[in-house]
Amino acid sequence: RSREMAKLTQLIDNEVFRAYATYATIVLVKMMLMSLITAYFRVTRKAFVNPEDTASFGKGESAKKYLRTDPDVERVRRGHLNDLENIVPFLGIGLLYAFSGPDLYTALLHFRIFAGARITHSFAYLIPLPQPSRGLSWVVGYAVTLSMAYKVLKTALYL
Amino acid sequence: RSREMAKLTQLIDNEVFRAYATYATIVLVKMMLMSLITAYFRVTRKAFVNPEDTASFGKGESAKKYLRTDPDVERVRRGHLNDLENIVPFLGIGLLYAFSGPDLYTALLHFRIFAGARITHSFAYLIPLPQPSRGLSWVVGYAVTLSMAYKVLKTALYL
Amino acid sequence: RSREMAKLTQLIDNEVFRAYATYATIVLVKMMLMSLITAYFRVTRKAFVNPEDTASFGKGESAKKYLRTDPDVERVRRGHLNDLENIVPFLGIGLLYAFSGPDLYTALLHFRIFAGARITHSFAYLIPLPQPSRGLSWVVGYAVTLSMAYKVLKTALYL
Repeated sequence: RSREMAKLTQLIDNEVFRAYATYATIVLVKMMLMSLITAYFRVTRKAFVNPEDTASFGKGESAKKYLRTDPDVERVRRGHLNDLENIVPFLGIGLLYAFSGPDLYTALLHFRIFAGARITHSFAYLIPLPQPSRGLSWVVGYAVTLSMAYKVLKTALYL
Repeated sequence: RSREMAKLTQLIDNEVFRAYATYATIVLVKMMLMSLITAYFRVTRKAFVNPEDTASFGKGESAKKYLRTDPDVERVRRGHLNDLENIVPFLGIGLLYAFSGPDLYTALLHFRIFAGARITHSFAYLIPLPQPSRGLSWVVGYAVTLSMAYKVLKTALYL
Repeated sequence: RSREMAKLTQLIDNEVFRAYATYATIVLVKMMLMSLITAYFRVTRKAFVNPEDTASFGKGESAKKYLRTDPDVERVRRGHLNDLENIVPFLGIGLLYAFSGPDLYTALLHFRIFAGARITHSFAYLIPLPQPSRGLSWVVGYAVTLSMAYKVLKTALYL
């Protein structure tokens, strides 16, 4: 068993894989932050969606008024969904890309630009910055993912 | 080719990787169940969103009344989205964590607590249980994922 | 380092893994297309959700009227979310399945049917085709994923 474990951990010695592990973890933790920001706005704006969440504010009509939508809460939720839509492809395609034998410099370039674009996208969405800040940061992350997808298909294509 | 195949399947002999494969599959299948529960409530509550889904109920106004939202359907859909938001990070970070050389006992502890927390979360959301059941189960899964993210970054950090 | 890199890239020489890489990339790029289709409908239908996105249409009330929902936009968004709900399980379970030692023919069958089902699902949702087209294509992708989950648990189960 210990030899197999050694083998498994050798993967984490590969620099491209380590770079992927680092940036994948960073963008996933960033995405997880959106949950906390949503919760923060729900509590401070008193805007909930589940009746059981407002039970502590009292019973009946006095609690019911907190079952409402709030523009700030909805904005964070849209940013969160946009993260899911874009980080899931990065997660899958990026892992396969790391196995497709890119050189370290090119791989780092892809991972860094993607992470930078998604962090910028979150700030652009939450502040919010005037367009085209959010649009451009979205496009950059999208293009980086497509570039990795091209490399994966060029290397691995087996239909 | 057969030697490569052998190598590939050796991964599945590693106990940490097997544990990850088991619990990742369990939480993903649990998440998939949410689709079935949504479909069940859509049919029994007759609450649809696409006009083509109500065509069998007749034409025009008689079918149109089934294009509506239903609190039970919306509740399951929120639970499903919450699963996506939390199980996607577990999927990515958990895989990298399995490659970061944790000892088997610690890894199992992480995977078991996460799976238990997410199953509890679904029951707390769907029944629904009074708060803080849902909140606590969410926090536990979140904390376990962050703990694995910390281990991944500590082991693999390559910026 | 170069030997480790060689090892890493050997994975991409395995035919089952290459098939997974190919079909996973195809369905992820297909999912990414949903973002572009949403953007296309938002612009052509002039139906936006963020005030900063309508700033170029003028100020105040003249821009505010474009902050609205549109049935075509909402339809694409539902298709996109359905993709997330179904492609995320395929991504995770499919990868583990590729490591569980299936024979190449069976693996290709699973991957091809899943990709075909999800592409059909998108056409059925967007055109839209009369039911049960969308329902059936959804069921087929769901069943294929469960079949792979069964193989993973049978091979790797470690609770």
